[in-house]
Amino acid sequence: MRTVYSEDHRQHDANMELIEGKLVKAHEMPRRADIVLDRVRHQKLGEIVTPQRFGLAPILRVHDEGFVTFLRDAWNDWLKSGRDFDALPHVWPVPGLTVPGRKRGSRISKSIDGKMGHYAIDAGTPITAGTWTAITGAVDVAMTGQKLVASGERAVFALCRPPGHHAGSDFYGGYCFFNNAAIAAQAFLDAGAKRVAILDVDYHHGNGTQEIFYSRDDVLTISLHSDPDQEFPYYLGYADEIGQGAGEGYHLNLPLPWGTAWASYEAALQQAMARIRQYGPDVLVVSLGLDTFEHDPISRFKLTHDDYLRMGEVIAKADLPTLFVFEGGYAVEALGVNTVNVLSGFDQAA
Amino acid sequence: MRTVYSEDHRQHDANMELIEGKLVKAHEMPRRADIVLDRVRHQKLGEIVTPQRFGLAPILRVHDEGFVTFLRDAWNDWLKSGRDFDALPHVWPVPGLTVPGRKRGSRISKSIDGKMGHYAIDAGTPITAGTWTAITGAVDVAMTGQKLVASGERAVFALCRPPGHHAGSDFYGGYCFFNNAAIAAQAFLDAGAKRVAILDVDYHHGNGTQEIFYSRDDVLTISLHSDPDQEFPYYLGYADEIGQGAGEGYHLNLPLPWGTAWASYEAALQQAMARIRQYGPDVLVVSLGLDTFEHDPISRFKLTHDDYLRMGEVIAKADLPTLFVFEGGYAVEALGVNTVNVLSGFDQAA
Ligand SMILES: [Zn+2]
Ligand SMILES: [Zn+2]
Repeated sequence: MRTVYSEDHRQHDANMELIEGKLVKAHEMPRRADIVLDRVRHQKLGEIVTPQRFGLAPILRVHDEGFVTFLRDAWNDWLKSGRDFDALPHVWPVPGLTVPGRKRGSRISKSIDGKMGHYAIDAGTPITAGTWTAITGAVDVAMTGQKLVASGERAVFALCRPPGHHAGSDFYGGYCFFNNAAIAAQAFLDAGAKRVAILDVDYHHGNGTQEIFYSRDDVLTISLHSDPDQEFPYYLGYADEIGQGAGEGYHLNLPLPWGTAWASYEAALQQAMARIRQYGPDVLVVSLGLDTFEHDPISRFKLTHDDYLRMGEVIAKADLPTLFVFEGGYAVEALGVNTVNVLSGFDQAA
Repeated sequence: MRTVYSEDHRQHDANMELIEGKLVKAHEMPRRADIVLDRVRHQKLGEIVTPQRFGLAPILRVHDEGFVTFLRDAWNDWLKSGRDFDALPHVWPVPGLTVPGRKRGSRISKSIDGKMGHYAIDAGTPITAGTWTAITGAVDVAMTGQKLVASGERAVFALCRPPGHHAGSDFYGGYCFFNNAAIAAQAFLDAGAKRVAILDVDYHHGNGTQEIFYSRDDVLTISLHSDPDQEFPYYLGYADEIGQGAGEGYHLNLPLPWGTAWASYEAALQQAMARIRQYGPDVLVVSLGLDTFEHDPISRFKLTHDDYLRMGEVIAKADLPTLFVFEGGYAVEALGVNTVNVLSGFDQAA
């Protein structure tokens, strides 16, 4: 299959993040994409395509305009406040810090720190000088992949960086800013698809994707992930979140415990695939995170190199036009092998 | 006036906090209380009293039981998770990370990181091995001061540390865990007072105090503070927050811009005193933060050493039994002079 890749990702190169009580070197780094691209070339997975430009239109189909404007201006606002290091929020408008009964966003502090806390879900997602370039470039990558699949390719790999699945309609976090997969899914609908399925195999719950489509039945979202009673993002991804209104029953969460290895992972994946078959979508978007790997530094699943070949084979069995969108995975040196194993496994079974 | 002081505060000695994008040495440190105590002695302000023990009963009058249990167990839960450095949350249950329509606290993640984010408002308030000892000790200090005032002393200084005014019924943050001033105010009511006024002169909005009493008219809360459009806590402290239900009109916010010096500060303080006179309380609790000082490292007001003498004089004019409860102030070396200036100014005018 073809891979869509842009050099823009390199502009988002954060120094630090707060995670599990420590400020550490950011796990989400440019080398993640480089090593995957090297492996794509080495394995001759297929042609590497440079993206077209799409501008803000597809972003605004799923993201709030105020949120997009905030991200566009955040770095300059941060500079104007007298700081030139990576921008992290430090306080959040949780229920105790909001006026009871007032709607979210009815007032947003004029300060950049207040705005960041308003739009962020965590302290682990720095905004840097090049973040805007990288995140709009990542959307171009996803959208170019979407166009290729919409015009008849069996499968395409959108090598997006930074990732997107934790970003919702008006919030960022978990290293994510724009939800590349959700933007592509909406673009499939806008191009005539009636139903799109999003399968999220990242180690973490795809909370942003779920939030964007939670009240809708034209996008089925399924997430296999580490149990939020044990793992980030802690507050969403429980099995009883099934959608609401028209979306009720169109959102499936399959939380799995720490230590999950292929046997029980595959059982959950087969359950997901059965739900996708039942739904009968026109197209499948895969949020492809590789942090389920046994040696991932921030995760606790036990998948091996070879398991990713099998994952690709299982996904191919859905027999659907498929867009793979790159998400997490922080065992950087193994990321090329694991990612391309999924894609090769898919190609061999497709 | 007498000062109530306990050595327990020393047990809360944090290494670091995340503030304005940087992880720095915690501003809220044991030396803050030491230097104030030294100055109390040096100026012969009055006797120094060791607190009685009050247990959890007065705390549970204003704080949620689940929250209190969380704080009691948090350090051990953190140790059990394999970490022994200061505990900071890194992700929060903001609206994007909650199921629409579900009540706050209807599900709390079993993980300590999820619990911390649930109960915390920021990433700047570390929980340490000795935090529980210190925060229950600070409540004992406030309660002992309350008993002395209730039994007829004109004024008492409760040298509480850590501070309390950012802590609400079920949340901690801004270096605060239990709301010492709110607990004392409730104790005055429980001892027979009909009306209590809380005057918060800390540089930051007393969001926790406001939250605790927001629907009630038996406690008037007034906060003079830096405009939340510019300053922490960013999301509360605006002038249009006036209370709700029975509390409507009993909560007054006087936000002031960066750069405020004594002339405009005093005008706001006189407005606060006028509202207190109109309310006619039986007793006054002062949340005494000194971070309005011109050289405070995290603040931007311009009060001078001498201004604090005048502040004490103005407060004394209310002619009310008064409990001073120590809050913020981070220009540590000046903290003794500034604090005792307020108290001496009060004593001289009382
Ligand atoms: Zn992940
Ligand atoms: Zn303060």
